[in-house]
Amino acid sequence: MKIVIVGGVAGGASAAVRARRLSETAQIIVLDRGEYASFANCGLPYHIGGEIPQRDSLLLKTPQDFRQRFNVEVRVRHDVLSIDPQGKTVEVRDSASGKTYRESYDRLLLSCGAAPLVPPLPGIASPGVFTLRSINDMDAILAYLAARSPQHATVVGGGFIGLEVAEALRQRGLAVTLLEMGPQVMMPVDGEMAVPLHQTLRRHGVDLRLRTALQAIAADGEGMALTLSDGSVLQSGLVIMAIGVRPESRLAQDAGLALGASGGIRVDSGMRTSAADIYAVGDAVEAPPFDDAMPPLVPLAGPANRQGRIAADTMLGRDRRYRGSQAAAVCKVFDMTVASVGLSEKLLQRQQRGYEKVYVHGPNHAGYYPHATPISLKLLFDPADGAILGAQAIGQEGVDKRIDVISVAQRAGLKVEDLEHLELCYAPPYNSARDLVNQAGMLAANVRCGDTAICHVADVLQRDPARQCLLDIRTPQELKAHGTYPQALHIPLDELRERLNELPRDKEILIGCQSGLRGHVAYRMLVQHGLRARNLSGGYITFARTLAAQA
Amino acid sequence: MKIVIVGGVAGGASAAVRARRLSETAQIIVLDRGEYASFANCGLPYHIGGEIPQRDSLLLKTPQDFRQRFNVEVRVRHDVLSIDPQGKTVEVRDSASGKTYRESYDRLLLSCGAAPLVPPLPGIASPGVFTLRSINDMDAILAYLAARSPQHATVVGGGFIGLEVAEALRQRGLAVTLLEMGPQVMMPVDGEMAVPLHQTLRRHGVDLRLRTALQAIAADGEGMALTLSDGSVLQSGLVIMAIGVRPESRLAQDAGLALGASGGIRVDSGMRTSAADIYAVGDAVEAPPFDDAMPPLVPLAGPANRQGRIAADTMLGRDRRYRGSQAAAVCKVFDMTVASVGLSEKLLQRQQRGYEKVYVHGPNHAGYYPHATPISLKLLFDPADGAILGAQAIGQEGVDKRIDVISVAQRAGLKVEDLEHLELCYAPPYNSARDLVNQAGMLAANVRCGDTAICHVADVLQRDPARQCLLDIRTPQELKAHGTYPQALHIPLDELRERLNELPRDKEILIGCQSGLRGHVAYRMLVQHGLRARNLSGGYITFARTLAAQA
Repeated sequence: MKIVIVGGVAGGASAAVRARRLSETAQIIVLDRGEYASFANCGLPYHIGGEIPQRDSLLLKTPQDFRQRFNVEVRVRHDVLSIDPQGKTVEVRDSASGKTYRESYDRLLLSCGAAPLVPPLPGIASPGVFTLRSINDMDAILAYLAARSPQHATVVGGGFIGLEVAEALRQRGLAVTLLEMGPQVMMPVDGEMAVPLHQTLRRHGVDLRLRTALQAIAADGEGMALTLSDGSVLQSGLVIMAIGVRPESRLAQDAGLALGASGGIRVDSGMRTSAADIYAVGDAVEAPPFDDAMPPLVPLAGPANRQGRIAADTMLGRDRRYRGSQAAAVCKVFDMTVASVGLSEKLLQRQQRGYEKVYVHGPNHAGYYPHATPISLKLLFDPADGAILGAQAIGQEGVDKRIDVISVAQRAGLKVEDLEHLELCYAPPYNSARDLVNQAGMLAANVRCGDTAICHVADVLQRDPARQCLLDIRTPQELKAHGTYPQALHIPLDELRERLNELPRDKEILIGCQSGLRGHVAYRMLVQHGLRARNLSGGYITFARTLAAQA
Repeated sequence: MKIVIVGGVAGGASAAVRARRLSETAQIIVLDRGEYASFANCGLPYHIGGEIPQRDSLLLKTPQDFRQRFNVEVRVRHDVLSIDPQGKTVEVRDSASGKTYRESYDRLLLSCGAAPLVPPLPGIASPGVFTLRSINDMDAILAYLAARSPQHATVVGGGFIGLEVAEALRQRGLAVTLLEMGPQVMMPVDGEMAVPLHQTLRRHGVDLRLRTALQAIAADGEGMALTLSDGSVLQSGLVIMAIGVRPESRLAQDAGLALGASGGIRVDSGMRTSAADIYAVGDAVEAPPFDDAMPPLVPLAGPANRQGRIAADTMLGRDRRYRGSQAAAVCKVFDMTVASVGLSEKLLQRQQRGYEKVYVHGPNHAGYYPHATPISLKLLFDPADGAILGAQAIGQEGVDKRIDVISVAQRAGLKVEDLEHLELCYAPPYNSARDLVNQAGMLAANVRCGDTAICHVADVLQRDPARQCLLDIRTPQELKAHGTYPQALHIPLDELRERLNELPRDKEILIGCQSGLRGHVAYRMLVQHGLRARNLSGGYITFARTLAAQA
């Protein structure tokens, strides 16, 4: 059995070593057009920023490591030019010698990854314009920084890479402008959940410009003049393009392999392409999704590694299935962490799928234990059957933990009702006796069983004063500290039971508190006293962020 | 409906406010013999240590809070003396006035908690001997520290409270001796998993004495002379007894309510006791277990809060069920965190239940990202059906997250095979593309499907040299740095494929590496070359700790 693997990063490396563990007799060849067999591409921004001081620590496995330990032959700087699926060969160019040769295979695995999108803008080929995907890209940026000492950098695109690079360049002391065409950074989360990120970026000196695209680049003295979609011109010494990636599927396409609608190589759950004995994994593929509403392309390292292992198994005759990705992801943005799993509200709306949402805002651990920091958690669920559709969280500490917990629950098919019963380790330095995930589960369960009725910011903004009344139950101190709801009746919760007669009995009361928690207490009080009410989920925190997101 | 709740902490407080949310018309009375309605008993050690500087921050809700917001009447310093289940009354003594009265109820909830165990040792009533369960206990300890300035403290018992108090007193600058009768601290984890805790305690200056009991206390000048089970005498100015708690079930027992075998009040999944209209929650109860092998008493805050909510529901006629506790727990010990869920190996052995175990040792996040710290994870599972039986972890960061993830998987009924497929958010500051939980799942799945055969430390120690050979595949540098396996053949992994002929073909090869990971690579190599082998799970790290635990 001769296995040829195209691309040695993540999925390719996983497949190579797994194949060896399954078969000592297989011949395993990895062809990689880069200079490095396997490197930590998730670590590139952190070397630029200086957190990872040693460049070598990004080089995970050298060709020698592969040979000695795994008897895997890695040929770096070998570029696969074409595939002959009938003849079962690939055409390879050795960049060192410039020579081209044919390599036969019994099984071929494509792990070609994804390439940064580079729009055809005027001046895009200027020497100060970079992408960041490979060690070479990183080296080029560092060399440029060393040679030119630009004082200002422009990062185009507010996704994972853009955010991480913006932070890295700030760490190096550059002034940084972050351009994002859309209304928010970090597309996997919804707009109101990205607002604290916007605040964090600006607090750390990033000149964030939303709804602003780069249109042209022109040389300008030592640096560049960037023309932006708002008509302004920005002087910058360095441009990093980070607007996204596209699957590297050209090789597959040229060989007649089926692609999916989004341009990724189509594979089944065994990572088989449409061509016999050709498999594909990682950022280049469209694998069967965890949920049909999920985006078809999931360029993340975790799924790539899992797919690599599964591809090795199926190449060697085992029956194994990839179970689809929930796109669980996390990003560090200065002192904040943002994470998400499953479907966002935006995606659900686009799919016109029924959903409900609840927000929880609370401390990452017991409030009385020092250094508690707030987390905001948004849980999306199916109001009909209680299925967990997705979740998003943002905060300083413990964000990844909450999303991981919900990710497991979602994959296991638990319902929102089950989240209340999850048993999460508790001690004051780690969380609260009732964790935020438990709380979100209770809220959602209350909605489902009718113990509460909630409303959202749009309901508050679009309320009909003839039929509805907004009741703010916060303390006067809170109104002063945080701001006020427009045209709200104000009765603090602790006075509410005595002042029920001040409420209009012929109107629906929309209840607003600070985080949504006390609003539920008020809701239960009002409905039991015969009033009609709904509680604003997420309270003033979500209200203010939603407004900011729409601004 | 008149609801009387005995005890306002955790479960009692949860039940009171939940009952109010369900019914505006219920009369709700909380009777607490302490001075505070609801306080953070998990926070007490941290106020002693100074991390929580404000005593008031431990007082979560005052009687006034309960009254204003929830219309719940809290009577502090009201001690319930007896219950008349037929007459549906309780007899109460008001400590302030000394007067005794009867209070009737429609529903009675017992949330009496647990009391510290105090063994009847000579001198146990000495003024310098304390327990730590209430605000009063804490105040008394602080007053004693202020008045007497003891230089040395002795903590008796190495459970959660004992460990937290030992740390707190070290924080205050006292010399601390920690006495533990058993061979390890932190009984919920197995011996080898507690070894890093022992090291941490000693590194932070705690004089840890295992297998040592306190036998007698005698006044000795300014302080006390403690006689220990090893015959030695210890001079100490302060003694904190933290050997465990017993359920406060006397009231229930006197009223004829059924107790469980371990002395807790027996309740069904609706938190109903054996007597009509009497319910019980929290540390005082034996609730139906998540797994029959779990300890019947689970004195933890999380379960108590969940039970309180469920008790309120069932008291008010709803059909709700407590789903049992997995005893998920976490403890901070200086810079270390130890956490566990489900069954330990000790418990499984005691139950003579079939199990297998795997160990994973790895960094909390990408090794190339700065400040990675090691985590050790132990996963216990049923080799027959793949059920997750329990897990334990220890490390500096991210320990709680891994145990939470496994806790959710266990509760959802996932198998070890499913752990590989869990999608946990990955970015270099948070974990690795293949998380430790994924890795543990792969190992266990490999064991189950026969892709690997593992052995354990006992197998290595008890091996028969005539039939078995121990092979150490680590590098020479590792042997030097970490220590050596006794009488092992040494061939580094990267030379193994070329030196297979040095291995005895008639013997079973037991493979040892540092963490167990590379041993699997060697295992696969050997068996495919026709050798018989097993890999030592957890490698030298587990080997050394197991020896240390047995020493």
